[in-house]
Amino acid sequence: MRLIGLDPGLRRTGWGVVDAEGNRLSHVASGIVATDNGASLAERLSQLFDGLNEVLVRHVPAEAAVEETFVNRNPASTLKLGQARGAVLLAPAQAGLPVAEYPANLIKKALVGNGHADKTQVQTMVQMLLPGARPENADAADALAVAICHAHHRSTHVVVSAAALGTGSARA
Amino acid sequence: MRLIGLDPGLRRTGWGVVDAEGNRLSHVASGIVATDNGASLAERLSQLFDGLNEVLVRHVPAEAAVEETFVNRNPASTLKLGQARGAVLLAPAQAGLPVAEYPANLIKKALVGNGHADKTQVQTMVQMLLPGARPENADAADALAVAICHAHHRSTHVVVSAAALGTGSARA
Repeated sequence: MRLIGLDPGLRRTGWGVVDAEGNRLSHVASGIVATDNGASLAERLSQLFDGLNEVLVRHVPAEAAVEETFVNRNPASTLKLGQARGAVLLAPAQAGLPVAEYPANLIKKALVGNGHADKTQVQTMVQMLLPGARPENADAADALAVAICHAHHRSTHVVVSAAALGTGSARA
Repeated sequence: MRLIGLDPGLRRTGWGVVDAEGNRLSHVASGIVATDNGASLAERLSQLFDGLNEVLVRHVPAEAAVEETFVNRNPASTLKLGQARGAVLLAPAQAGLPVAEYPANLIKKALVGNGHADKTQVQTMVQMLLPGARPENADAADALAVAICHAHHRSTHVVVSAAALGTGSARA
């Protein structure tokens, strides 16, 4: 079962693809989709959507998982992140993949065993759990963490199949 | 020149299509795309995107305009609206239309001559400026107001052509 994790952001969105076979995980690929700072908002959302579609076509994951957004104290940042998140969730949903969402503390707990772990601890665990993975940067590593969390949870939770429902996506 | 105005919301997004010929405006069609309250966020974003794509295919506008979102005091509402807005901006951008954004007070000023006009005044002007238009509800009327504002502004501002730039969208 191939899974993609996504870490949304308007400047750059991290993505990480892993294969899960029972409890065994392996790294397939990871990276970021970056957008052009000087472009209009609609253009940047299109760049995110197109970039993620390319990743989906290249690696053909069966399910997607996205980190639930932490609501920022700065409303303008929250709006910006929300808009990016809209485009990032749409890409796998439009491709017919079920899309699960996980809160940040659940992802940390799945990886480090502690919902308040810091970024470095999470990144260290990503590299331990996925030998050979050399995530390009923090956003790609965070996306791999989301994929790992989804791999752990989907084995214990029923993931509603988008195909079975005839809809674009489902919540884990 | 056919224009579409959009008023984004996760529960329902208003849309309004008008034809602009010099200073003459005429109503083509308007309505809303509603989403299923019980569906996952990714599904609802897909419903918005698919619904707007149907409208774009049916009415073939040449340019799109979207109201700039007022940042809400409630961060959770701002995030929700941001996500809907991401999907709503993407639909015309992916269809290759230039996408302009206008702040709410500019839209009110374009219609009523006063940036602090109330909703009823705006809706009354929409019906005066577009004889025969019977917008289904407030969201469709607001979307027509955005389209009218864009029609006024595009005649005095240069709208960068998406086709000329080879990109998906442009800012007015």
